[in-house]
Amino acid sequence: MNTSGKVIKCKAAVLWGLEQPFSIEEIEVAPPKAHEVRIKILATGICRTDNNATTGVMPAKFPVIVGHEAVGIVESIGEGVTSLKPGDKVIPLCVPQCGICSNCLKPDSNYCDMLDIVGKGVLSDGTSRFTCKGKPVYHYMNTSTFTEYTVVRDVAVAKIDAAAPPEKACLFGCAFTTGYGAAINTAKVTPGSTCAVFGLGGVGLSVIIGCKIAGASRIIGVDINPRKFEKAKAVGATECVNPKDHTKPISEVLKEMTGDSVRYTFEVTGNLDTMIDALASCHKNCGMSVVVGDPPASSVLTFDPMLVFDGRTWKGCIFGGWKPVNDLPKLVSDFMAKKFNLDELVTHILPFDKIEEGFNLLKKGESIRTVLTFQH
Amino acid sequence: MNTSGKVIKCKAAVLWGLEQPFSIEEIEVAPPKAHEVRIKILATGICRTDNNATTGVMPAKFPVIVGHEAVGIVESIGEGVTSLKPGDKVIPLCVPQCGICSNCLKPDSNYCDMLDIVGKGVLSDGTSRFTCKGKPVYHYMNTSTFTEYTVVRDVAVAKIDAAAPPEKACLFGCAFTTGYGAAINTAKVTPGSTCAVFGLGGVGLSVIIGCKIAGASRIIGVDINPRKFEKAKAVGATECVNPKDHTKPISEVLKEMTGDSVRYTFEVTGNLDTMIDALASCHKNCGMSVVVGDPPASSVLTFDPMLVFDGRTWKGCIFGGWKPVNDLPKLVSDFMAKKFNLDELVTHILPFDKIEEGFNLLKKGESIRTVLTFQH
Repeated sequence: MNTSGKVIKCKAAVLWGLEQPFSIEEIEVAPPKAHEVRIKILATGICRTDNNATTGVMPAKFPVIVGHEAVGIVESIGEGVTSLKPGDKVIPLCVPQCGICSNCLKPDSNYCDMLDIVGKGVLSDGTSRFTCKGKPVYHYMNTSTFTEYTVVRDVAVAKIDAAAPPEKACLFGCAFTTGYGAAINTAKVTPGSTCAVFGLGGVGLSVIIGCKIAGASRIIGVDINPRKFEKAKAVGATECVNPKDHTKPISEVLKEMTGDSVRYTFEVTGNLDTMIDALASCHKNCGMSVVVGDPPASSVLTFDPMLVFDGRTWKGCIFGGWKPVNDLPKLVSDFMAKKFNLDELVTHILPFDKIEEGFNLLKKGESIRTVLTFQH
Repeated sequence: MNTSGKVIKCKAAVLWGLEQPFSIEEIEVAPPKAHEVRIKILATGICRTDNNATTGVMPAKFPVIVGHEAVGIVESIGEGVTSLKPGDKVIPLCVPQCGICSNCLKPDSNYCDMLDIVGKGVLSDGTSRFTCKGKPVYHYMNTSTFTEYTVVRDVAVAKIDAAAPPEKACLFGCAFTTGYGAAINTAKVTPGSTCAVFGLGGVGLSVIIGCKIAGASRIIGVDINPRKFEKAKAVGATECVNPKDHTKPISEVLKEMTGDSVRYTFEVTGNLDTMIDALASCHKNCGMSVVVGDPPASSVLTFDPMLVFDGRTWKGCIFGGWKPVNDLPKLVSDFMAKKFNLDELVTHILPFDKIEEGFNLLKKGESIRTVLTFQH
């Protein structure tokens, strides 16, 4: 059936308010306007950032359709779209690449002006393409993937290999790309170095994969949930530590374990205290700590400035520093060429309507990544 | 007169306690013990870090002889000293380079284990070489240069060109080396970039010289004392801004002035609020802020972690990241070869016994660097 130009009725998981469950509703998805594309979602991962929208830690306008880590097929395109066509396999981008803003024009910035960091929840014309029970439903992070169909800006889409398996390739929409890039692009981990990764979820495991590919000789996983250790070791951690097993601060534990030679640390929990722990854990004069987990909105952090003054490097990155429209197709090609695999990251695959079950697995720490699949 | 092996009686500026004036006293300087050298000081600069010892901002044990930026001549050497001989022109090093500790062995760390950051005030055997009125007087930062003669460890001495003029070359003992290295080694300022330097004292001007030599196309000096602007422009600042002339935060002012393109910022005041201002002033996703000014001991800093998460790099350095025994001779050679000049930095030259006058010039913001000279 040719749906181009028509409103599509389909199922979506709507959040009607803060702390509400996901409600599977029939929604209406308007056709894409100029420079927009409508995408049929094939698979979408469940990420902590989506959960943060349900709790208010990440800003969102309600009612909203969240979800930002997916693979889909372009169903139709709006006026002026030249880079994509119906049938293309794509990843919607929570970090767009408009290619013309001052940041996109800088070779080392990927903070595109189109990024919806404040949760406006609308597309370029200031309106939503989603309607449910006669009310507009807002977008989230330029993506909104917990729906059978979504509409996004054309600059927020990366075209990928048509053969890429959706239930794994969706991880390029967030977790893998963010963690892997933090090691490869942001830290530029050097061969033979010692790394410590704080937080062993999907992003943390992807950091480990990046550190391993970069040639780190020692990769220490740090988590207060020891059930995460097996997976961490499976993807490349050489050892794991639970801070709860020690009375000393974790920075002291790591210093003793390594003879004060931790060169790179990665904070992948978004916890403020862990940010300081990770900073203190790298070498005081030539260590680097990368903030990967997003801190709670409107938070403040208090720390001893000598931790920086003495010579440490503290840096952040969004989306692993990649320029997504350019770089995601290459990353997916590397995956298809078996440069790395994502088998350990996808622990659960559930049908879309089991979304609540997927979020419960996340909250209980029982999943690395749950991927929801759609039956169209 | 051959003084080797004998106690030398000479003049020194002793601080008897916190907030006390410098008291010119006759002191006794013991001969150097094993792996120590005794140095006749020729010229020594007055640095804010010395003033910080008088106020308690930097830890010191009293009575103390402070001063850490000097050129002198080796008078005699202790047992086992092989790298130096009497007559060598040298710079005492507040950041030593023992060459054998784990940090010295790292190619990119200069945080030698011999660094006396906590103000122990004694040499390796746990005692002082200074006596005044029968009481021991403590060392400071491995150097203690406000005295006609001092004793330091041999690993805390860099041998320099015998022709180097002491009243300028002393700045390699701290101000110039720290600021220039922050731009060259720590930030690795790139050609064509835009830099902002917060604090236009001796170290700040040296940062500007480094930025200019690295090829920065725009160098913005920032200070609340507009009397500093002329010197800043003389060494390479392309323009200067006084935050007090604006109601907006300085980060906003710089963003507007540059179209949000400040790539590198340098904090050279040691003020905690300025550290945050400098961080916020560099580009949110690909900017770098270098902390050069030492923050007050035991201070805490509170800030919005998004300033780092978004992609900024925040880093520190000590002594400009140089390995001092190796690198200072080369820096002095570059100076002798006129790669840069220090004419604008040395604003006052006073005889040693005018030390109080020199500190008053510093406190009133009337000097960049006052250098004290000795008549032996």
